Amino acid sequence: MKDPQVMTRLKTAEGHLRGIQRMVDEEVYCIDIIRQIQAVQSALNRVSTMLLEGHLNSCLIGAVRGEDPDERERVLKEIAEVFEAATKV
Amino acid sequence: MKDPQVMTRLKTAEGHLRGIQRMVDEEVYCIDIIRQIQAVQSALNRVSTMLLEGHLNSCLIGAVRGEDPDERERVLKEIAEVFEAATKV
Amino acid sequence: MKDPQVMTRLKTAEGHLRGIQRMVDEEVYCIDIIRQIQAVQSALNRVSTMLLEGHLNSCLIGAVRGEDPDERERVLKEIAEVFEAATKV
Amino acid sequence: MKDPQVMTRLKTAEGHLRGIQRMVDEEVYCIDIIRQIQAVQSALNRVSTMLLEGHLNSCLIGAVRGEDPDERERVLKEIAEVFEAATKV
Repeated sequence: MKDPQVMTRLKTAEGHLRGIQRMVDEEVYCIDIIRQIQAVQSALNRVSTMLLEGHLNSCLIGAVRGEDPDERERVLKEIAEVFEAATKV
Repeated sequence: MKDPQVMTRLKTAEGHLRGIQRMVDEEVYCIDIIRQIQAVQSALNRVSTMLLEGHLNSCLIGAVRGEDPDERERVLKEIAEVFEAATKV
Repeated sequence: MKDPQVMTRLKTAEGHLRGIQRMVDEEVYCIDIIRQIQAVQSALNRVSTMLLEGHLNSCLIGAVRGEDPDERERVLKEIAEVFEAATKV
Repeated sequence: MKDPQVMTRLKTAEGHLRGIQRMVDEEVYCIDIIRQIQAVQSALNRVSTMLLEGHLNSCLIGAVRGEDPDERERVLKEIAEVFEAATKV
């Protein structure tokens, strides 16, 4: 699923990370750099949620309605896995 | 879905929180208390993942296979919401 | 450092966890239980921050002004450690 | 504080983000993209911790030993703030 919003947000996050490198280079106050890194992480959380929404509304529906129980189980398991990982990043 | 494992883990987390209150009462070193709180949070992440797994394998399957598109949309939206919240706690 | 606010919040979190056990027992909708668990975790984040603030304003100041470089290093290292752990729970 | 390791890790994260954009462009499986985003976030957590360590060992020591109580209070408060924010990203 190719979402232009996802791409735009990823490009923005990449530009933000380049700006953070300039801050490190210019020896900006560390706490301000940490805050900018946290802002990038927060933006990436949003992107992950958008991707998950797309996934739920396409692949997941297909797998749950499909004939293959292994495929269904795999897709449901993956969602639980990225949820658990989300609590750790 | 009544999962005995979920209940056991919640009881353990509750006991852990009572132990942390004793630590505060006995003026244990703050950093050690913070570490115990983080351990409880980590245990609660595990419980949330277990609950989500149960939910995916029951309610979600029902909603996706069901006839009601609003119900399906609601169930999928909720999963994205708890995922997004998970990135913030 | 014995902070009555910390104790009150820990007791509230413990009561909240007992309420969540009742929700599991009464087979409340899983997503609502997950949301309550996330609320407890969020409350515990607040308690950890309060404990860290107390620690910074007491032990840390003592260690940084003290004569023992190993003790100072240990205290600073611990703060970085709980910070890193905080990003993972 | 100009740490070459911090700069290297930020550049790596930036490259990783560009790779993720290619994945989106090539319509790679959403779950795999989410996992890569989580890996970038995890790498950024490491960078934040490294920056905090540097900060504690320089600015913080200066502020705690310095003569200005407002400056000291400000520096300690900031650390508690980034800690609290860390629990939310």
